[in-house]
Amino acid sequence: MKMNKNISTYMGFEDEYEESSLVIFGAPFDGTTSFRPGTRFGPMYARQEFYGLETYSPYLDLDLEDYLLFDGGDIELPFGNTDVALNMIYDFSKKIVCDGKIPFMVGGEHLVTYPSFKSVFEKYNDVVIIHLDAHADLREDYLGQKFSHASVIRRAFDLIGKNRIYQFGIRSGEREEFNFAKENTYMEKFEVNTIDMIVNKIKNTPVYVTIDLDILDPSIFPGTGTIEPGGITFKEMMKAIKSISRLNIVGADVVELSPHYDSSGTSTAVACKVIRELVLAVVSKK
Amino acid sequence: MKMNKNISTYMGFEDEYEESSLVIFGAPFDGTTSFRPGTRFGPMYARQEFYGLETYSPYLDLDLEDYLLFDGGDIELPFGNTDVALNMIYDFSKKIVCDGKIPFMVGGEHLVTYPSFKSVFEKYNDVVIIHLDAHADLREDYLGQKFSHASVIRRAFDLIGKNRIYQFGIRSGEREEFNFAKENTYMEKFEVNTIDMIVNKIKNTPVYVTIDLDILDPSIFPGTGTIEPGGITFKEMMKAIKSISRLNIVGADVVELSPHYDSSGTSTAVACKVIRELVLAVVSKK
Amino acid sequence: MKMNKNISTYMGFEDEYEESSLVIFGAPFDGTTSFRPGTRFGPMYARQEFYGLETYSPYLDLDLEDYLLFDGGDIELPFGNTDVALNMIYDFSKKIVCDGKIPFMVGGEHLVTYPSFKSVFEKYNDVVIIHLDAHADLREDYLGQKFSHASVIRRAFDLIGKNRIYQFGIRSGEREEFNFAKENTYMEKFEVNTIDMIVNKIKNTPVYVTIDLDILDPSIFPGTGTIEPGGITFKEMMKAIKSISRLNIVGADVVELSPHYDSSGTSTAVACKVIRELVLAVVSKK
Amino acid sequence: MKMNKNISTYMGFEDEYEESSLVIFGAPFDGTTSFRPGTRFGPMYARQEFYGLETYSPYLDLDLEDYLLFDGGDIELPFGNTDVALNMIYDFSKKIVCDGKIPFMVGGEHLVTYPSFKSVFEKYNDVVIIHLDAHADLREDYLGQKFSHASVIRRAFDLIGKNRIYQFGIRSGEREEFNFAKENTYMEKFEVNTIDMIVNKIKNTPVYVTIDLDILDPSIFPGTGTIEPGGITFKEMMKAIKSISRLNIVGADVVELSPHYDSSGTSTAVACKVIRELVLAVVSKK
Amino acid sequence: MKMNKNISTYMGFEDEYEESSLVIFGAPFDGTTSFRPGTRFGPMYARQEFYGLETYSPYLDLDLEDYLLFDGGDIELPFGNTDVALNMIYDFSKKIVCDGKIPFMVGGEHLVTYPSFKSVFEKYNDVVIIHLDAHADLREDYLGQKFSHASVIRRAFDLIGKNRIYQFGIRSGEREEFNFAKENTYMEKFEVNTIDMIVNKIKNTPVYVTIDLDILDPSIFPGTGTIEPGGITFKEMMKAIKSISRLNIVGADVVELSPHYDSSGTSTAVACKVIRELVLAVVSKK
Amino acid sequence: MKMNKNISTYMGFEDEYEESSLVIFGAPFDGTTSFRPGTRFGPMYARQEFYGLETYSPYLDLDLEDYLLFDGGDIELPFGNTDVALNMIYDFSKKIVCDGKIPFMVGGEHLVTYPSFKSVFEKYNDVVIIHLDAHADLREDYLGQKFSHASVIRRAFDLIGKNRIYQFGIRSGEREEFNFAKENTYMEKFEVNTIDMIVNKIKNTPVYVTIDLDILDPSIFPGTGTIEPGGITFKEMMKAIKSISRLNIVGADVVELSPHYDSSGTSTAVACKVIRELVLAVVSKK
Repeated sequence: MKMNKNISTYMGFEDEYEESSLVIFGAPFDGTTSFRPGTRFGPMYARQEFYGLETYSPYLDLDLEDYLLFDGGDIELPFGNTDVALNMIYDFSKKIVCDGKIPFMVGGEHLVTYPSFKSVFEKYNDVVIIHLDAHADLREDYLGQKFSHASVIRRAFDLIGKNRIYQFGIRSGEREEFNFAKENTYMEKFEVNTIDMIVNKIKNTPVYVTIDLDILDPSIFPGTGTIEPGGITFKEMMKAIKSISRLNIVGADVVELSPHYDSSGTSTAVACKVIRELVLAVVSKK
Repeated sequence: MKMNKNISTYMGFEDEYEESSLVIFGAPFDGTTSFRPGTRFGPMYARQEFYGLETYSPYLDLDLEDYLLFDGGDIELPFGNTDVALNMIYDFSKKIVCDGKIPFMVGGEHLVTYPSFKSVFEKYNDVVIIHLDAHADLREDYLGQKFSHASVIRRAFDLIGKNRIYQFGIRSGEREEFNFAKENTYMEKFEVNTIDMIVNKIKNTPVYVTIDLDILDPSIFPGTGTIEPGGITFKEMMKAIKSISRLNIVGADVVELSPHYDSSGTSTAVACKVIRELVLAVVSKK
Repeated sequence: MKMNKNISTYMGFEDEYEESSLVIFGAPFDGTTSFRPGTRFGPMYARQEFYGLETYSPYLDLDLEDYLLFDGGDIELPFGNTDVALNMIYDFSKKIVCDGKIPFMVGGEHLVTYPSFKSVFEKYNDVVIIHLDAHADLREDYLGQKFSHASVIRRAFDLIGKNRIYQFGIRSGEREEFNFAKENTYMEKFEVNTIDMIVNKIKNTPVYVTIDLDILDPSIFPGTGTIEPGGITFKEMMKAIKSISRLNIVGADVVELSPHYDSSGTSTAVACKVIRELVLAVVSKK
Repeated sequence: MKMNKNISTYMGFEDEYEESSLVIFGAPFDGTTSFRPGTRFGPMYARQEFYGLETYSPYLDLDLEDYLLFDGGDIELPFGNTDVALNMIYDFSKKIVCDGKIPFMVGGEHLVTYPSFKSVFEKYNDVVIIHLDAHADLREDYLGQKFSHASVIRRAFDLIGKNRIYQFGIRSGEREEFNFAKENTYMEKFEVNTIDMIVNKIKNTPVYVTIDLDILDPSIFPGTGTIEPGGITFKEMMKAIKSISRLNIVGADVVELSPHYDSSGTSTAVACKVIRELVLAVVSKK
Repeated sequence: MKMNKNISTYMGFEDEYEESSLVIFGAPFDGTTSFRPGTRFGPMYARQEFYGLETYSPYLDLDLEDYLLFDGGDIELPFGNTDVALNMIYDFSKKIVCDGKIPFMVGGEHLVTYPSFKSVFEKYNDVVIIHLDAHADLREDYLGQKFSHASVIRRAFDLIGKNRIYQFGIRSGEREEFNFAKENTYMEKFEVNTIDMIVNKIKNTPVYVTIDLDILDPSIFPGTGTIEPGGITFKEMMKAIKSISRLNIVGADVVELSPHYDSSGTSTAVACKVIRELVLAVVSKK
Repeated sequence: MKMNKNISTYMGFEDEYEESSLVIFGAPFDGTTSFRPGTRFGPMYARQEFYGLETYSPYLDLDLEDYLLFDGGDIELPFGNTDVALNMIYDFSKKIVCDGKIPFMVGGEHLVTYPSFKSVFEKYNDVVIIHLDAHADLREDYLGQKFSHASVIRRAFDLIGKNRIYQFGIRSGEREEFNFAKENTYMEKFEVNTIDMIVNKIKNTPVYVTIDLDILDPSIFPGTGTIEPGGITFKEMMKAIKSISRLNIVGADVVELSPHYDSSGTSTAVACKVIRELVLAVVSKK
């Protein structure tokens, strides 16, 4: 019996950094959340709940144990200073990208997507975005702030420009956001029915996938900051990830789990399965 | 900086009474509830939660801000005296109807529909009822009481008679209620698939719409007095309201939100979106 | 006014043992649960919640009051001794079978199915199993234990052998379990679409039906030990029971309700309706 | 193995009616509750939780098993008709009193005390009341109603008159109620420090004891309709009951447990221990 | 029946601004909270719960209805920008002070005390602070931030200097904070036993009172951001406020109610009573 | 930036095994729990919550950072096999004792004390036990099982014999247990008032301290398997630990945290502070 320091990783992510092709890490930030805060607890709860999950996916017939995966833990972010937090996330993700690995981030609120995506974009200038969400997140600013969970996709748009963002499941926003989308992004409202068509179109172009879990219906995912009834089912999510698995994914994140708002634990269980499936979708293609 | 008394209204209902075409108000009554009480808290929670809602509906492509709407607050009802409570609701609704406006009530248990409907019926003698609910509410009486949440549609039937009540989504009741419906009302069990057909038939006849939110599946709406699995989805509700929006609606209500039985807050969020959509359905036709 | 001892039975199960054709009883055991314990509270909560349920089913157009049904209460099982508990359940069920009645058990974790099924199998050697579940439960052992909630169907297989177990809705397990199923059982993954076909094939062969409620999606049934998103809907369950009602059912159980993990009460309400419908499915054929 | 109907009684209350000296029963009524309803669930939860309780009290060094006690179950009361409900409680309690036994009622809201007390008063005209509560309950009426949880002690006063009601722990009410108490009752505000002195004064006069559990601090008893911080501790309650045990108690009740408002289960556990101790206090003197 | 816009104020605060001597308002800010966010919901929940409270205090034998009190509502603060939020609070409080009224603020996290206190200090240069709290809040900075909930009293110290801050109930902090207190403030650890002595010493000097509700034990006040067992009881709080009522209070606040972390509602009820008593303590002296 | 595997330890326990004098570890076992299971989650929740705790204790004026402490993680125990689980705990603790370090265990149910204590007893034959608990745990067996949470102290008695067990705070049990205690142990019922006297008597004899957290009142510690109102306060616990800190402690444990039964998080926060204080009490003496 040897006494080692207590290690806690996502189940199936027990490999060393150097040998791994994908690095999962948490970004526990909820500083600009406008309604119910608490996504700061998302990464911690997801890692803990992951212990109860099988590494085998009957959806993709793949097993996490067949891949080399590293868990970088959660970044220790300061409270109340958005700029510093975003920079720390950027630095962390940048290192992973520079080391030739794929960053896979667990949020936190949606704003954390910006620095992670930016680090990916700097390596893959032709990257496009697949965006699953209940909200358009296309505001120019929110209550005067340019960097907000409600404007994060607009900030990504500032980086990459027109016709390179594909949005699915959007069912809430201001009229202006829907108008902006008509001109500048691809948007399927309410559903994820056209994702296979888009996948066929994107082909081998590098893709950054960002999944705001509130695209799911609150019946299956109530544990989030802003509840929007009318979302997609878990089975539709599985189908969408299967489509996505055909793409060349160079970065990904899963955001907006706020576990304290779901006493049953369902939301965290859902987040874990989405993470498992999306990780398998990313690495199985490599 | 001017110091005014703190005003609290449904978001988008900031106009004056005189200029408004629709008046929303709460009827916090749960006196005859036989299982889990608590719909008395429905109106208060709905108004509060409404702050987090956009005024724009991507379902109907309409915005509350384009209409003149007044919030009359919640009626202060006594406890333990059904007769007095029903009379107070009647008086409140009657005034709105007499002033040429449309009453839009938020319950409370389903029995509150009776006085509101009665005030509408006295002006529109040819009015018909669209009734969305898990329960038939057609009992002659309930434990000896003629006026009960379980008999409210039967009491409305007493006013308007045969073939003028259209019931959808019914999935619970005694055998006698289903037999009564066969003779006297139109009833679609379990689903809301035929509502478009009924809308085509009703045409311009004045309509009173009463939505008991427990028609929704408890997966999306657990916060109610009597849980009945097997209900419709939120998307089916949205589709039904879109159909209804073609009608000439002269009164409406949304009842049976019991927020304390849903710690996640989902039920209240659902109630708010149903209220927003139904209000838009009512006023957009005028 | 006569003062009798307080009797508490499932609503509609007020008949005497001798005259009844079906006996419902609870098996409050959760000793091998590996994640969230608490199904020990299932039988007690189900009986209590049943009071709020109508005895009439609009799904099957049948009424519990038209049948002779007995409630045997919950077996008082010891804590921490699996062998003794299983033996007590076996004895209880055996007596019912020997008296020519149908045992209908409410769990408890899934392992309780083994002793109840064994007592039925000893009378009906040609019995087959209909198994609705999220999990395959086909492990040879679990952490060294042969008798576990995760191996219960494998133990039943040990009794009856190949091609006599029909599994539906399975969406979680180890790769080995899915491989075992390919060789030895009929398994439909994720869905219950082929149950009608199987019913046609089984015809009059005696059937034991075991429903692990976690086959349902956690949106409608979060109150269980292991949450598996992606399950079937309540309506699909109702349809499956309707199919099953054509069979010659000689024993049945409904397991894995863990009420403390669902503060809204939805899970217990769901369990009660499944019990009502399955009981009606069983007795209506006799 | 004999199959009897499932019997559910308070642990230790398994004797027959005829031989018992004390009869416990539930009065699940909350019709005039003005804030949070739900005490209707109190009797059912208390009986269930009682299974986990030892029958031995280390406080009084007495054991329920040494006494003959009967559980009469819960009265099935109608909803929304206060008069009928109060009459049914009166009839039930009256029979117990007439049969020479002591009625011990579990509420329900405090108004249920009135009919039970009335039945006792009709036999013992010189009866006095020991009243433990957070609220004075001395209003002449409440929102126009004479019979209300907020006026129940005033109604008892109407029956027995001045200087026969002893109130302890009162910490909330209108100024008028405190003024009324100065003239007409004995009242110790906030504490139960003088109860021993009062017990010495009362001596052998017949006593009706009514304990509104909200006299306890909400830290230990949050599960009640109206939360009033600043109450007594559980240990002070135990000490008060020990004092009371020296009295000649001819009727008693414990009211205002609302279990849904305490997800931890503490309030129900507290109610059960208070019931056990007060029952022992009553019967040990006989 | 006249139809006015729905007004929502603290019960007993229905007077006009111009005539009132005290102005209550909410500061829903939780931007620097380091553990569990959510005090942003405190002011809204407190106002709502206040409806259930009597205006009469049996502790002080005073009634809110005997005073002229105004409710200014809650300031609409931006998310994620601490500087802007603090300035808005300062402006609001400054106006109240300049108009010769006493500001009474409901938080929000403790950092909101800084701008409110600053506005008071600018008028009363000799003001001292009474500080009730579980935490010293004396850090020079927290994770690099000078303005944080954990440094707010240190920032107040920067304004007024040595020996003018009186701290009670402190039971958590870093060793450095306790050392700082020894040199620069008066601090009673764990208890509030010496407050009467301090009141005698302060005499007529203007006082700003800030109550961080987490000074209370979590048994009675779990609904806060950082739980610290070992706090004072509610009765000790009442006694402390009675002592404070002898002072010349020129500004006050009650902070750190986080209602979502207390499903029983006890914490909000406690906050409301503390607000009622402290308001009465402030205005009764004028 | 170096990428290491994610390490998760109790805050302040970051030292290496070899250099440490005390080793903390978790024993997540709840196999014989008779009422509400769930203490298996205790160790995981305690470690996680510990992050929010200061390492400095104002009670003892000591800081965890001044000591060499190692966190050995949680033992991975099987489900449903008590013997195997107890042996694994014994082996783990035995190694720590043999290496000359002090084992400090976090439960789990109280039965885990037996193997840990046994390993200590084998080294220190003259060891005595300080036992803080609501329950006597002195049953000869429980439902036929000799090794049960309800008999664990009796099993320890079997090892060390008469007059070497000191019990405090006991307030629940069967009459036989209290009688046994009179003959064989020192027992203070309800309170911990005599602990200082006992400490003076024990002097330098080696001591094993076992704290069942349910000795605390459920107002401050509801998150446990069996709720027993009437417990000690947190301040009394702090005082008791201060007394204990004068002893020569050679082994210790803190058991019976069941975090799922306390949605507010208070119980876990309490457990963490008790752990911090008791660890400091143990190591400060060395």
